[in-house]
Amino acid sequence: MTTTQQVRLAKRPSGLPDADTWNLTTEELPALSPGRILVQVNFISLDPAMRGWLNDVRSYVPPVGVGEVMRSLDIATVVESTHPDFAVGDTVSGTFGVTEYAIHDGRGVQKVDLTAAGGPTWLGTLGMPGMTAYFGLLEVGDLRAGDTVVVSAAAGAVGSIAGQIAKIKGATVIGIAGGAEKCRMLTEELGFDAAIDYRSENVLRRLREVAPEGIDVYFDNVGGDILDAALANLRRGARIVICGAISAYNAEKLPPGPSRYMSLLVHRASMTGFVVFDYADRYGEAVAEISGWLAEGRIKSREHVVDGGVARFGETLNMLFTGANTGKLVLAV
Amino acid sequence: MTTTQQVRLAKRPSGLPDADTWNLTTEELPALSPGRILVQVNFISLDPAMRGWLNDVRSYVPPVGVGEVMRSLDIATVVESTHPDFAVGDTVSGTFGVTEYAIHDGRGVQKVDLTAAGGPTWLGTLGMPGMTAYFGLLEVGDLRAGDTVVVSAAAGAVGSIAGQIAKIKGATVIGIAGGAEKCRMLTEELGFDAAIDYRSENVLRRLREVAPEGIDVYFDNVGGDILDAALANLRRGARIVICGAISAYNAEKLPPGPSRYMSLLVHRASMTGFVVFDYADRYGEAVAEISGWLAEGRIKSREHVVDGGVARFGETLNMLFTGANTGKLVLAV
Repeated sequence: MTTTQQVRLAKRPSGLPDADTWNLTTEELPALSPGRILVQVNFISLDPAMRGWLNDVRSYVPPVGVGEVMRSLDIATVVESTHPDFAVGDTVSGTFGVTEYAIHDGRGVQKVDLTAAGGPTWLGTLGMPGMTAYFGLLEVGDLRAGDTVVVSAAAGAVGSIAGQIAKIKGATVIGIAGGAEKCRMLTEELGFDAAIDYRSENVLRRLREVAPEGIDVYFDNVGGDILDAALANLRRGARIVICGAISAYNAEKLPPGPSRYMSLLVHRASMTGFVVFDYADRYGEAVAEISGWLAEGRIKSREHVVDGGVARFGETLNMLFTGANTGKLVLAV
Repeated sequence: MTTTQQVRLAKRPSGLPDADTWNLTTEELPALSPGRILVQVNFISLDPAMRGWLNDVRSYVPPVGVGEVMRSLDIATVVESTHPDFAVGDTVSGTFGVTEYAIHDGRGVQKVDLTAAGGPTWLGTLGMPGMTAYFGLLEVGDLRAGDTVVVSAAAGAVGSIAGQIAKIKGATVIGIAGGAEKCRMLTEELGFDAAIDYRSENVLRRLREVAPEGIDVYFDNVGGDILDAALANLRRGARIVICGAISAYNAEKLPPGPSRYMSLLVHRASMTGFVVFDYADRYGEAVAEISGWLAEGRIKSREHVVDGGVARFGETLNMLFTGANTGKLVLAV
């Protein structure tokens, strides 16, 4: 018998999740039936999309039900197996949830190669955020060498990779982030051409200065005023990639949309949404290419690992919404 | 010497243009220098885009200057010519402005064939509105047979043609218009599959009823709440064509944008703006195809011709913003 602690959704939050949102429970896991694995979770991925799963709205995935274990993507070690594809000791990624141990039928579970990169990197640069950056920029954004690319939440898990991929592909890259330290990291460590601190600078005016001929690709993770600032600075034929809108995820009612959207008409531009899961059959291609860049030192992977186990899940998640993390936010169990 | 009355921009309007916006002037035109034509204007096109030209903002064309003759596309007769390409008696279309007579150097002036269609039709179905509907729907909207298409301002010049072209191309077509009479016309005369009266119906709910599987192409002429209602009813992979936003053209400050734009992400959808002038080298192709449909009776051209000459320009223009017109609004001189 294995005892595990888990975080369950206690109550749907209104606004920023708080202590009432979560319930830390303990349960005994039963013995494995055939075709199952028991995993011990090592790292839990914290993602802005999690906030959407807490609302009682079917989006591209169903919401997490009240009383259910919070959904999360994890890196885990197989500690028991009755499944032909997995052996004890395998390191795997899967949607095991915010839990210490889980029993799983193996569907959607992938083995990960820790010699290529550590667990947190497999949740970030080589995980969903990396896939999102790669396909969002190259497929949805149709990036071309010479483009001027702007990335918001540029010090975050997706943005930091999107910006670095854009540089590798020959673009001029401007990152928007909150705070001088994040901006310094973007230009000094990650090779961005310019960084704009949205907390202390007027983004609309600064974009005009650093991208005087306008933006070809805007990779949007935040929505809100920053999306409008980008709309005000498009070049003809610009592509806006709608990846997220973290500024709105905790809003109690739907905030106003981008008031400058008619700039799409003036500049013959487009705004396109995507969901990375649609590229699942091409993740291998992206992992291979990004791994190569990591090995060559052309991409730096930034992870922000918080210790403390599942009990710290709630407070760690909220770091995403206050901008407290730099790079991929991961909870170590 | 030719005496002409003209409408000039007297003062940039705030909100809906009023009598102070316009100045009716009389002037004597000089004798023709070489390479010029003198035209007598027969029909003046009234277009929602005109409102944008009154703001002191460079959009895809420069604004009309205070004191300048109001820009308009007209159908006119050549009454004097020193230009090798034009003879007295030719009927032409050109940007002659809101005037009775004009001297012009012939650039951008096209001869029109009145045996194919009358002057108002050359300003509507075979003019810019027809070109806008054709390229917006088929190129920007990438219409495919079997699509569910929604058109706003569907009883207007562009919308009425866009909807009919969509039907010809094998789509299910829903029109949104203001008032029972316009809606009746859409379904009974123009062959739309359904019509929604935005003045008396909840557009969001009605779209859910008439397009239960969602919208593939939304051709937007209006913006505002109706754009949001469409965003709430997208099918996966939907294309929103941003053609105009008449609901906002008289707003004194930029209204909020589409609050449901994140629906683009959930539905992997796009929102793309365009300017019909970019397709100028393909107008011939569109005119040929649309003329064929007109001759076959597969497209019905609706024109709303107001008599009264240039003095009535201001009040006639405002009919566009109160929804008083059905089909292409034209001022007869």
